[in-house]
Amino acid sequence: MSTQTKRIAINFGGGYVPGLNAVITGAVLAANEIGWEVVGIRDGFDGLLFPDGYPDAGLVPLDREMVEHLAGASGSVLGTAARSDPFHVRTVNPENMVEEVDRSDELLQTLHSHKIDAVISVVGPGALSILWRLSRKGLKTVAVPKSVENDMAATSLSFGFDSALSFATETIDRARQAAESARTIGIIEVPGERTGWLALQSGMAVCADAILIPEIRYDLHKVAARLREKAKAGRSYALVVAAEGAAPVNGQAAPAAGRPPVDSLRASLSPGASGDEGAHVIERSGHVAERVALELQRLTNHETYPLVLGQLVRGGPPTAADRQLGLSYGAAAVRALQDNQSGVMVSFQPPDLKFMPLLETINKVRTVPADSVFVQVARALGISLGN
Amino acid sequence: MSTQTKRIAINFGGGYVPGLNAVITGAVLAANEIGWEVVGIRDGFDGLLFPDGYPDAGLVPLDREMVEHLAGASGSVLGTAARSDPFHVRTVNPENMVEEVDRSDELLQTLHSHKIDAVISVVGPGALSILWRLSRKGLKTVAVPKSVENDMAATSLSFGFDSALSFATETIDRARQAAESARTIGIIEVPGERTGWLALQSGMAVCADAILIPEIRYDLHKVAARLREKAKAGRSYALVVAAEGAAPVNGQAAPAAGRPPVDSLRASLSPGASGDEGAHVIERSGHVAERVALELQRLTNHETYPLVLGQLVRGGPPTAADRQLGLSYGAAAVRALQDNQSGVMVSFQPPDLKFMPLLETINKVRTVPADSVFVQVARALGISLGN
Amino acid sequence: MSTQTKRIAINFGGGYVPGLNAVITGAVLAANEIGWEVVGIRDGFDGLLFPDGYPDAGLVPLDREMVEHLAGASGSVLGTAARSDPFHVRTVNPENMVEEVDRSDELLQTLHSHKIDAVISVVGPGALSILWRLSRKGLKTVAVPKSVENDMAATSLSFGFDSALSFATETIDRARQAAESARTIGIIEVPGERTGWLALQSGMAVCADAILIPEIRYDLHKVAARLREKAKAGRSYALVVAAEGAAPVNGQAAPAAGRPPVDSLRASLSPGASGDEGAHVIERSGHVAERVALELQRLTNHETYPLVLGQLVRGGPPTAADRQLGLSYGAAAVRALQDNQSGVMVSFQPPDLKFMPLLETINKVRTVPADSVFVQVARALGISLGN
Amino acid sequence: MSTQTKRIAINFGGGYVPGLNAVITGAVLAANEIGWEVVGIRDGFDGLLFPDGYPDAGLVPLDREMVEHLAGASGSVLGTAARSDPFHVRTVNPENMVEEVDRSDELLQTLHSHKIDAVISVVGPGALSILWRLSRKGLKTVAVPKSVENDMAATSLSFGFDSALSFATETIDRARQAAESARTIGIIEVPGERTGWLALQSGMAVCADAILIPEIRYDLHKVAARLREKAKAGRSYALVVAAEGAAPVNGQAAPAAGRPPVDSLRASLSPGASGDEGAHVIERSGHVAERVALELQRLTNHETYPLVLGQLVRGGPPTAADRQLGLSYGAAAVRALQDNQSGVMVSFQPPDLKFMPLLETINKVRTVPADSVFVQVARALGISLGN
Repeated sequence: MSTQTKRIAINFGGGYVPGLNAVITGAVLAANEIGWEVVGIRDGFDGLLFPDGYPDAGLVPLDREMVEHLAGASGSVLGTAARSDPFHVRTVNPENMVEEVDRSDELLQTLHSHKIDAVISVVGPGALSILWRLSRKGLKTVAVPKSVENDMAATSLSFGFDSALSFATETIDRARQAAESARTIGIIEVPGERTGWLALQSGMAVCADAILIPEIRYDLHKVAARLREKAKAGRSYALVVAAEGAAPVNGQAAPAAGRPPVDSLRASLSPGASGDEGAHVIERSGHVAERVALELQRLTNHETYPLVLGQLVRGGPPTAADRQLGLSYGAAAVRALQDNQSGVMVSFQPPDLKFMPLLETINKVRTVPADSVFVQVARALGISLGN
Repeated sequence: MSTQTKRIAINFGGGYVPGLNAVITGAVLAANEIGWEVVGIRDGFDGLLFPDGYPDAGLVPLDREMVEHLAGASGSVLGTAARSDPFHVRTVNPENMVEEVDRSDELLQTLHSHKIDAVISVVGPGALSILWRLSRKGLKTVAVPKSVENDMAATSLSFGFDSALSFATETIDRARQAAESARTIGIIEVPGERTGWLALQSGMAVCADAILIPEIRYDLHKVAARLREKAKAGRSYALVVAAEGAAPVNGQAAPAAGRPPVDSLRASLSPGASGDEGAHVIERSGHVAERVALELQRLTNHETYPLVLGQLVRGGPPTAADRQLGLSYGAAAVRALQDNQSGVMVSFQPPDLKFMPLLETINKVRTVPADSVFVQVARALGISLGN
Repeated sequence: MSTQTKRIAINFGGGYVPGLNAVITGAVLAANEIGWEVVGIRDGFDGLLFPDGYPDAGLVPLDREMVEHLAGASGSVLGTAARSDPFHVRTVNPENMVEEVDRSDELLQTLHSHKIDAVISVVGPGALSILWRLSRKGLKTVAVPKSVENDMAATSLSFGFDSALSFATETIDRARQAAESARTIGIIEVPGERTGWLALQSGMAVCADAILIPEIRYDLHKVAARLREKAKAGRSYALVVAAEGAAPVNGQAAPAAGRPPVDSLRASLSPGASGDEGAHVIERSGHVAERVALELQRLTNHETYPLVLGQLVRGGPPTAADRQLGLSYGAAAVRALQDNQSGVMVSFQPPDLKFMPLLETINKVRTVPADSVFVQVARALGISLGN
Repeated sequence: MSTQTKRIAINFGGGYVPGLNAVITGAVLAANEIGWEVVGIRDGFDGLLFPDGYPDAGLVPLDREMVEHLAGASGSVLGTAARSDPFHVRTVNPENMVEEVDRSDELLQTLHSHKIDAVISVVGPGALSILWRLSRKGLKTVAVPKSVENDMAATSLSFGFDSALSFATETIDRARQAAESARTIGIIEVPGERTGWLALQSGMAVCADAILIPEIRYDLHKVAARLREKAKAGRSYALVVAAEGAAPVNGQAAPAAGRPPVDSLRASLSPGASGDEGAHVIERSGHVAERVALELQRLTNHETYPLVLGQLVRGGPPTAADRQLGLSYGAAAVRALQDNQSGVMVSFQPPDLKFMPLLETINKVRTVPADSVFVQVARALGISLGN
C-alpha cells in the first residue's frame, strides 16, 4: 500500500449519467476503509479553476454519513461539466477578447496546495484524453468509464447504460401504445452517435419492427417493404427505433451544422451525444428521427411521427445493476491508487475488474459486430435492421 | 332491478388513456355479480360497423377470468377509436368517391341483433355528444369520463389524469437534470389544450420556475425577468412547463393549421389534445414549446430547449388511484343501468359517485379558476405563472 | 402580515412518511418569497433538547438551493422522531434511575434563544396533542397532517397516503402472482390500526377476494364460503387484504402484548401503526395476517400464507400527488403564520386548504363510513368485506 | 433446416419468474419467421395430462398478434407448475389410495397425437432432470434456464435474476428507511438457498452493513462487533441482508422440517427456494431472517426486525435486461430445434448464446467464488460478510 496517498479527489467530466453518485459512494467508502480522505471537486475541474464561483470554494468534503444514502439517488452531488477542459479554458483577456488559455499547470499546483494526492475522474469517451494529458503531466489519476451508449471499447460495460436501456425501453413501450392508438408509425430516436447498442437492445426489448444503427447503413425502401407486409397481415401501426448516428446506405449521417435557429432549438432536445460528452454534437440530435419519419411517410403513405429521447434517458435514478457497477468502479479506482497505479481506467472484463492504461482507451469505439448475438436474435425475431 | 337488461356492451371512444382496462374490469365484475353478460366492442363502434375486419367479428366476450388481471394492465384490450363516429362514417360510394354516411340506425339495429341491451362508453369530451345523440335515438347508454387533462366540468376527476400527472412529473424531473447538467432552460410542453391542470400540477410538483396555462395569458418578458433574477442569484438553468393551449397576452394560442410537412410531422409527437380526442387537433402539439423556447432564448440570451411530452403521458400503466377510479366508474355504470338510468355520465363528486344527464356534460370545460388553491400555492412558492 | 416573525423552524414528529421532504421544500420556498428564514430541527425536537448529539448542534439552515431538489426525494433530511415528547423526556437522574422529565419550558426558551419565532410541525395523529400543549404554552405553531392511513378526521387527505396506496397496490399485485403461481391463499396485512382506507382502496385496486377493515367486524366463515364458491368456479388461489386493526365479529383486534420473544421480533416487521406514530403499537403488526391465515387455512383446507407490508409502505419516494400535497401544505403553513394564525392544523377540504384549531383535530379518527362509495363499489365488484 | 419440425410446444416448469412471457414472445416470433406453429401447454405438462380441467383442453395457440404485447407483461399466460412431474403424477387409484404413477409414455403419445414435434421448456434447476429424462425417451426438447437466484452453473445468467435484483434493491432501500426511522437493525432475507448472488448484489447495491450468503459461514459475533463499531461512530440503525441458505459457522442452515403449524404458515411467505422450484423447500424460508434477528438482538442489545422478501421478488414485470434475455432465449431455443439439436439447454456465455447438453447442466450449482469481484468489492466497501 502506498503511504504517500492520503487525500484524494473525485470529479465528473462530461454530462449527467445515471449512477454518478454511486461511484462517489464506492470511492468514499473504500477510501475510508483504508484511512484516506476524499473531497469532491464541483463541476468537473471548475471548482478548482473558478473557486470564487462557489460558496464552498468548489470543494466538497465527502464522508461516510453523506455518501451512504447516495448510491441510489438521481442527479449529481458534484455537478457535471460537459465543457470543462483545463487545457482550453475560455477567458476574457485584457483586450476584452475571449481566448482559450492552458491552465493545466495551475490546476496541478492548486491540487497540490489542497494536498490532493490523486484524482478519480468519472468520464465519457471525450474527457479521457484530457485525463491522459493531465496524467502525463504528473497527476496521479484513475478514470472511471461512464456512457449511456456503452461505446467505450476498453470496458465491456460503462455504467449508465443499463439505466438508459431501462428507461428507453419503458418509454418506447409508451410510444408503442401511442402509435397503436393513433394507428401511426412511431420513429423513436435514442442516443448512439457512433454505436447502436442502445437502439438495438431497447428496440429488441420492445419488439420493434425495425432498428436502425450506425453500424448498418439503412435502406428505407427495405424497411417500408417490411412494414407494408405487416400492414397487409393486419397491423395498423409500426415502431422504428433509430440511433442518433444511423445513416442511409446512399448518404451520410444526419448533418451536424449550418441549420436555422428553429432547428437548432429542436435538436437540442438531446443535449449530448457520443455517450456523455455531448455539447459539441448537440446539433445532430433529432435529425435522424425527422429524416426517417419524413421518408417513411412518403414511402408507406402512412402517417409517421418522430420522437427524440436523447435527454430523458441521460437522467433519472440508476438501476440496481448500475448502482452495483458504479459502486464497484468507485471502489476499484481506490484500489488502483492503493496499488500505486496511475494513468489507468477501470475496466469491466467479466467477471473481473481490471485496469487499462489510459492511452489504450482513448478513441476506441465499441461498435456492434455484424455477428453480434443481438443482431442475430433481432433478425430471428423478424426485426428489420434496415438492410 | 331491471329484468330486461341482460347483456350489455362496453367500448372506448377517443384515444388511449391509462386505466381503460380497469373500467372493463369494474363493469364486468359488477355485471357478473348481478347475472349480466358483458361483451366488448372493438375500436369504438368499428367492431360493429366493420365486423369483417376482425377475426372475432368485432365483439369480445368478457368474463371474470379474463378481466381479473386487467385492472393494472397498460394498453387497451378493446382498442380505441379516435375517429369513430357512426353519424359520419367515411365510405367509398359507387362512384368511387369518399363520402360520409350516417350509419347510426344500422348501428342500433346491429346492437339489437346481438341482443345488446345497453352500451357503456368510455369517452373523452369529444365523443360525449356522439353518445348523447345515440341516446336520443333510443340507445340505452352510460358514459364514463376519461381525460388526461381533467378538463370535463361534469366530474371532478376524469380517470387517466392521475397517471398522466405521475408520468409527467417523473419525466420533467429528468428534464430538470438534463437542463441542470447542460445549463440550459428546458421548456416542457404537456397536454392541456383548453385547461392547465396537468401543467399546473406537474409544474408545481417539480418546482418549475414558470408554468404557462391556457387560463392565464402569458407575457414572456415577465417570465424572462424572473429567470434573470434567479440567474443572478446563482441558478444556471431553468425549467418552464407549458400546457399545449397556453397563449401569449398579446396573441393567440399556437396555430392549428397550414403548416409545412416537416412541422406537421413534428407536431404529431402528440397524437391528441383536448383530453383524449386528439386526432383533429394533432397539428397543434409542439408549437407552444417551440414558440416559448425561441422567444425565451431571445429574451434571456440563454440556450433553451423544447420538449414535448404529449404522447408519452397518454400511455403506460394506470396509477393505483386511476385503477380505483376506473374500477369504480365501471361498477357505477352498471349500477346506473341497473337503476334504469340512461343517457347519463358517471360523475365523481367527492365523496360520491353520481349520474349526470349527458346533455349537461357536453362542451362543459373544467378550467383552472383564478383563485384555485394550486394557483395560490404556485405563486406562494415563487413560481411565475407568466403574468 | 406579521412583521415580528422572521425566522421559523420546521420539524417532523412521528415516523417516516413519503413526502416529508416536499413539505420542507414548500415551507422554505414560500418563506423565502416573503423574506423569512427557515431552519430545520433534527429528529423531532431532539435537535434542540440534545444538541450535543449533533455535529451541527441539531439545527439545519434550509435555503432555496438546498430544498429545490428535495420535493421528490425519499427519506427525510431532518430525521424523524417517533418517541420525541418534550413533556416526557426520558432522563437518567442523579440516583441513576430513568425518569421522565418535562422539558417543555426549556424547549420554548431554547427556541427563543435561537430567535425562532414559530414552528411548523409535520405530525401524525399522536403528536398533535403534544403540539397543542406547546401551543397553549405560547409557542406559535402550525401542524401539517401526515398519515399513511389517512386516519385524521380533520383533513380529507393526509400526505403519505397516496404513496402508501401506490406501493401497497404494486406489492399486492406481486403477492397475487405468487399466490396464483403457488395456488395458495395470500393474506396481506397493510397499515390501518383504526381505519381501513388503505386496505379498502388497495384491496379494491387489485380486485382482492376479501378485504377486512377495522370498521367492519369480520366473520371468516363467510369469507371462507365466498372463497369456496370461487374455487368451485375454477379459481385455484385467493387474495385477502387486511388492515392491522381488523377484528373478528366475536372477538377482539389482534392482541397487543404478552407475546414471546420470537413473536415480538416478527411483529416488528411493521415498526408503526396508527398512521405514523407507531412505536407504541409496534407489537400488534403481523398478528392479523397470521390469525387470518391460520383460521382460513383451517376453514378452507387450502394452504395460506401471511405477508405483512407495514414498514415497506411507510418508506420510498412520494407520488406526484403527495409531492403536490406536501408542497401545498408547507406553503399553506407559512401562509397561516403570515396571517398570524397559531395553534392550527392545515386541512385539505377540497378544493380548498383551510386551517383548523388544533384542539378540534385531536383524537378525531377518520373512519370508513358504512355507506362509503368505496364500500359500495367493493361490494358491487363481488369483494367480500367479511360480513 | 429441418423440414420435419413444423409445430412445437412451449411450457413452463417451476414457479413464476419475471420474464416468462418474453420467452414465449421470442419463441413464437422466431418460429413464425421460419413458418412454424407454436402452441402453449398450460401449467407445465398439466395441460396435456389433465386436459379436462381446462376450457381450452390445456393447449393455447400462440400467434404473432397475441405475443407481441407480452414481452414486458408480468404474470404468465401459460400458468406455472411447481409440482408437475410426468414421471410421478399423483393419482387416486381404484382402492381410493393416493399413489404416484409414471405417465411419461402417455405424455409422449399425447404430444404425438397433437402433432407436436418438440417442446421448449422454461425450467429452473429442479425441472431440468425431468426434461432430460423425457429427452432420453425420445422427446425433442430444448430447455431455457430461469432462476431468480442465478444458481445454474451452465449459464452465466438465468433470466429473472436481474428483475429480482432490481426489486430486492428497491425494497431493501425502503427497509433501510424504516430501520433508520425506527432506529432498529433490519434483517432482510432474500432468495438464495444454495447461492448468494442475489443477497450479495442487492446487499452491495444498498450498501448494507453485513451480507450473509451460503458460500461463507457466518459468525454473528463478528457481525455484531462491526455493528457496535458503527454505532459508536454515530449510526443508530443497521441493515443486514441474508440469503435463505446462509448458515452459521458452527451450525447448519435453517432447518427444513418438524416445525409447528404457525411456523410453517409464516415460512410460506416465500413459496419457493432454489431459484424457482420452491415447493419442496417452502418450509425453510423466513428462518434465516428470524434466527439472525433473534441472535443479533441478543448480541447487540439493539432492537432488530426480520423481513422476508421471498415471494415478492419472484413476481412483477421483467426489467429491460430480462426482456432481452427472455426474447433471446426463446429465439435461440427455436434455432436449436432448427439446427436439429435436442436435449440441450440454451446457455448465455457472453457474448454468445450456446447450447449445452442437458446432462451437463443438471445439479451444477453456480456458487459465489471466494475471490469473486463482488466479494472483493463488498469487503472494500467495508461490508461485513459474516466472517
